[in-house]
Amino acid sequence: MSALPGVKALVFDTFGTVVDWRGGIARDARTFLARHGRADVDPHGFADAWRKRYQPAMEEVRSGRRPFTRLDVLHRENLDLVLRDHGLDPDALPADDLDWLNRAWHRLDPWPDAIPGLLRLKARYFIGPLSNGNILLLANMAKRAGIPWDAILGAEPARAYKPQPEAYTRTAEILGLAPGEVALVAAHNGDLAAARDAGLATAFVLRPHEHGPGQRTDTRAESDWGASVNSFEELADRLGC
Amino acid sequence: MSALPGVKALVFDTFGTVVDWRGGIARDARTFLARHGRADVDPHGFADAWRKRYQPAMEEVRSGRRPFTRLDVLHRENLDLVLRDHGLDPDALPADDLDWLNRAWHRLDPWPDAIPGLLRLKARYFIGPLSNGNILLLANMAKRAGIPWDAILGAEPARAYKPQPEAYTRTAEILGLAPGEVALVAAHNGDLAAARDAGLATAFVLRPHEHGPGQRTDTRAESDWGASVNSFEELADRLGC
Repeated sequence: MSALPGVKALVFDTFGTVVDWRGGIARDARTFLARHGRADVDPHGFADAWRKRYQPAMEEVRSGRRPFTRLDVLHRENLDLVLRDHGLDPDALPADDLDWLNRAWHRLDPWPDAIPGLLRLKARYFIGPLSNGNILLLANMAKRAGIPWDAILGAEPARAYKPQPEAYTRTAEILGLAPGEVALVAAHNGDLAAARDAGLATAFVLRPHEHGPGQRTDTRAESDWGASVNSFEELADRLGC
Repeated sequence: MSALPGVKALVFDTFGTVVDWRGGIARDARTFLARHGRADVDPHGFADAWRKRYQPAMEEVRSGRRPFTRLDVLHRENLDLVLRDHGLDPDALPADDLDWLNRAWHRLDPWPDAIPGLLRLKARYFIGPLSNGNILLLANMAKRAGIPWDAILGAEPARAYKPQPEAYTRTAEILGLAPGEVALVAAHNGDLAAARDAGLATAFVLRPHEHGPGQRTDTRAESDWGASVNSFEELADRLGC
């Protein structure tokens, strides 16, 4: 029997699972920092600092303290904060440059196995991102890199940020499926645990370099997920695609 | 100068503009009716009767009398009514058969010029549907027919049915664009008028057979739309794609 019986749609965490956010942000931050006389700042550290503000910003929305706000806006606000932390004044920098750097999140590259695996999985399953990224971010990323999604799903159409249960259950509803007919594919044990609690099937993909060398989190499947693999191509093998 | 200056995204009405709904619904209705002993019913008349209930059902939502309800649900309710009008009792028919017929809206074929034109337009513009169809309907249609959308937009992510202004303005907002940077491409003068009122650019595509032979509505551009063409390929020519 194939793994994930009864599953008709595969939805994917995106930052870290499909694409290498740290490498992509560092690449464009390096260009930006050099252009503004700060080649001394470590671009990977800058990427980590920007990403670190991701959860607290979404928590404002999840808690209900702030109405639903798409991730491009949260990233842009966080960028100002990270620049100030590095001694740069965003108000003194050209708006176009800041917008260009903010759109670095739209220009992330997939891990090498991601697109070959997705092309095989798409032949048998409905596939889409279940990301906290907004529709435009995910669509621009897909258009640039050739990611073959069937539809752009995630926080914006669901109007809820993971790991809130509504992010998972409303995605199944949009797909016209019961939660158990949808599997979340993710490199993060916490995301998978929330998806399972919401009734979804689960598949863990190991991404040992998401956080760079010496990564210490999500270095293994921490539960008996529906599948545990090392790449999207291995997932396609396991699902008979 | 190319037509539609300053436009960065093209969004498309779908039923009638991209796909031939009448032919597709008639094809599957013919199969369904024959299977249930009613080969005497004209399948094109059946398609017209089903479609006729489309606007009144959405009007319940637009008026605020009913919360936002996706089109698959409205189609399914309308199917029951149309079957009763034809002397068939939906409660006596297999649920699977009814669901199969309801999903005929997911299996519509594009007009012959649509995909060749979209492939050219996609190289230069962000493209997506701005349809009253729900995400799953449009995504299944695209997956089956190979329609190369960059993202599935429309009533469901915008939470508003055309021709309400929010259907157009919220779509521009999702795209991170000003309304004037988005053009609606449609075969329907009324849809274009509402889009223009909401600030969008406009392009009319003549679809003289949407309603079958002897069509009497939308047989010409009734205003000075930003462009008026006879096919998506002519639109690609006009936009220098």
